[in-house]
Amino acid sequence: MSPSSSSPHAFRAIDVIRKKRDAIELSREEIEGLVNGYTKGDIPDYQVSAWLMAVVLRGMTRPETAALTDAMLHSGEVLDLSSLRARKVDKHSTGGVGDKTSLVLAPLAAAAGVAVPMISGRGLGHTGGTLDKLEAIPGFNVNLPVVEFRRLLEVCGCAMIGQTAEIAPADRKLYALRDVTGTVESPYLICASIMSKKLAEGIDALVLDVKTGSGAFMKSEKDAAFLAELMVETGERMGKKVIALITDMDQPLGNMIGNALEVVEVVEVLRGGGPEDLRELCLELVGWMLHLGGVAKSVTEGKEKSARLIASGQALERFRQMVELQGGDPLIIDHANRLPKAQHTMQVQTNKSGYLGSMQCEHIGTACVILGGGRERKEDSVDPAVGIILHKKVGDRVDIGEPIATIYYNSEPKAERARQLVVASCEISESAPSKKRTLVHRVIGKSAGAD
Amino acid sequence: MSPSSSSPHAFRAIDVIRKKRDAIELSREEIEGLVNGYTKGDIPDYQVSAWLMAVVLRGMTRPETAALTDAMLHSGEVLDLSSLRARKVDKHSTGGVGDKTSLVLAPLAAAAGVAVPMISGRGLGHTGGTLDKLEAIPGFNVNLPVVEFRRLLEVCGCAMIGQTAEIAPADRKLYALRDVTGTVESPYLICASIMSKKLAEGIDALVLDVKTGSGAFMKSEKDAAFLAELMVETGERMGKKVIALITDMDQPLGNMIGNALEVVEVVEVLRGGGPEDLRELCLELVGWMLHLGGVAKSVTEGKEKSARLIASGQALERFRQMVELQGGDPLIIDHANRLPKAQHTMQVQTNKSGYLGSMQCEHIGTACVILGGGRERKEDSVDPAVGIILHKKVGDRVDIGEPIATIYYNSEPKAERARQLVVASCEISESAPSKKRTLVHRVIGKSAGAD
Repeated sequence: MSPSSSSPHAFRAIDVIRKKRDAIELSREEIEGLVNGYTKGDIPDYQVSAWLMAVVLRGMTRPETAALTDAMLHSGEVLDLSSLRARKVDKHSTGGVGDKTSLVLAPLAAAAGVAVPMISGRGLGHTGGTLDKLEAIPGFNVNLPVVEFRRLLEVCGCAMIGQTAEIAPADRKLYALRDVTGTVESPYLICASIMSKKLAEGIDALVLDVKTGSGAFMKSEKDAAFLAELMVETGERMGKKVIALITDMDQPLGNMIGNALEVVEVVEVLRGGGPEDLRELCLELVGWMLHLGGVAKSVTEGKEKSARLIASGQALERFRQMVELQGGDPLIIDHANRLPKAQHTMQVQTNKSGYLGSMQCEHIGTACVILGGGRERKEDSVDPAVGIILHKKVGDRVDIGEPIATIYYNSEPKAERARQLVVASCEISESAPSKKRTLVHRVIGKSAGAD
Repeated sequence: MSPSSSSPHAFRAIDVIRKKRDAIELSREEIEGLVNGYTKGDIPDYQVSAWLMAVVLRGMTRPETAALTDAMLHSGEVLDLSSLRARKVDKHSTGGVGDKTSLVLAPLAAAAGVAVPMISGRGLGHTGGTLDKLEAIPGFNVNLPVVEFRRLLEVCGCAMIGQTAEIAPADRKLYALRDVTGTVESPYLICASIMSKKLAEGIDALVLDVKTGSGAFMKSEKDAAFLAELMVETGERMGKKVIALITDMDQPLGNMIGNALEVVEVVEVLRGGGPEDLRELCLELVGWMLHLGGVAKSVTEGKEKSARLIASGQALERFRQMVELQGGDPLIIDHANRLPKAQHTMQVQTNKSGYLGSMQCEHIGTACVILGGGRERKEDSVDPAVGIILHKKVGDRVDIGEPIATIYYNSEPKAERARQLVVASCEISESAPSKKRTLVHRVIGKSAGAD
């Protein structure tokens, strides 16, 4: 009866905005209309940003979240990897400090017989990005056309590239808008963003590493678990096998933070060494990848199989092959000095003896960004050489004068700022922490009891 | 400690959006920064629309509402009417159907000795607009420059114009954005929009007519009272005398709806006739205007004074003078046939006998819009001649075959749609309604006991 009822079937963005504002569930058609209209440029930024804010404050139902993911996924191409015989499995992390597991997992899982078509992102904020780490390897090319990506997967079983223009263009446009309108922090929008991109890889199964703690985007375990459940359910609605591990990010993962340094640590792990926490998490994640990928009956079997592939050197060989196929210098594996190297180092010491009680993990990540190892703005370039090596982890004994970390730097003033931040982020306590935080807090998903 | 802390004092719209999203109170400086940045074009639409949606869903505190009103008010000029000796008083209505009180009140209050610098709007949605009614008078010019507006106020004591480019430009820009982003319906934003424009008139006092009922924007009395309190408090914080009357809009005000028809009814009231409800509301509102304007000791005295000015013909003479000064044809007052006239009329009858139990008042307004008397889109032009005359009001006896209304039209198919809508909006009941709704539900404001 209202004047606007003269064309009742025409899609109007304003109606969809109002419904979400008033907490009324949107239909699949309404969500598709909005996403497609925005991607095509028919719906302006200012309407979509109002809708995004309504989503942040009103939330979404599970069917709405699935419909949004689906609409974003189908805004672009879904890779056709049906020519690959192996099951296609990927891993995605919500981002942390020192998290270089992707570089270990892709060749390791490929060596075990699953295909890993990994499309990754760059670092933003205090977290590192897989693409930045890969590009620390001289010559490594993360910008491959889809045909080349597919060929490498056939040859090597794994390939690691950046997002292409064809993959989920709606997500690129929406993410850029969310970034400037205070609408990043919504589990529903985060879920749709991650899952649309991952499902566009044409995968069969996905292992999610949802970080929680002072270095994660989701500081509380409750928020992390909520996001994990959302992503698992959304993936399952689309017929994929999805599992999520809630893992600890209350201190950096491993000892090295910074792009070239992290490649060094990846090689250490693939050689059978490396820090215990990083090694353990890699085995947990790859165990799940192999189990969901159908090459291990259980997660334990997957872990054991992977341990053998590391011990035999096959995992490292697969990494060498991938680096070479993507144009990188494979000699960095045996000659770490061929990686970009910072000009100076500086020791970080505490002014107090005791135990390393806790770390403000986000600040360690920020210290690395300050050194030039990450981006303060999207358009910034990254210095691959700089970074931090931690000599102490939470729970370790620390004495005055003993270095807790070494800073690798190319600018003295930046190094001094980073040093102060590292010192400030370490809490030294009188006694050793009573209980060690476990690395894997929970496993969420239908197959969660598979171990 | 975060990367962005390098310029801690720079104003960033994103920070203001995030704070409002997280329900943290904004400072006066933050609100000013946003409004000024948007008015100047430094802050894009898409950031402001996200902020507006956060305001709709999070609300605003009273200091925030006052700061927003103030920032919008000072985005443009505040009229300097200090040359006028009389106190300057205006009336504003939140919009209804058949509400032509402004045309009665301006000359009536001016005749009583207060100055009425009235800046009005056009009809939108189902409600009419004062400017459209004035323009039904051949030659009447609502687009006067400020100097001419001031001169007319000095000569005549009242003048009625449209919003100028100098008055609250932030409101014009914000309103256009709200209209397309589902962010109109917020009492805080409505308050700031109304009060910034009214306070820009340089007035001393303001009488607010906040409508409630099926023909009002605020259907529930609770919502109407909340908005009224907000506007009164905001005006008082700025040192103005403000009173709000919550008045009934469950059926059209008076009998005539449509621009030229409403001018006819205005003249009737100024002559001492006209329908009872319209006459009564005009006297209530003008009583308050005169009381706040300092020319009546009480509202009752203001009403009595006004009744005498009507009886003596002075109010009508003032109307005639205003029409003439603004270029309109003063002969319409004695010769209604000089007003635009519809070509055809159609009787509306009910198919049932009984009592008119209630009216869907918004639909009566929409019926007038369908006839061409209002706008479906902003850019539409208005047909001043068309409209509806009601022969029955709620509570009246109705018999089959007896006309309840007459439609004045220029297009047969539109008239038929309007007729159906009028019939559908009238509920005929077996017995007379037990209780008549009062016209003035409540009075809100510091002076509320002044009568």
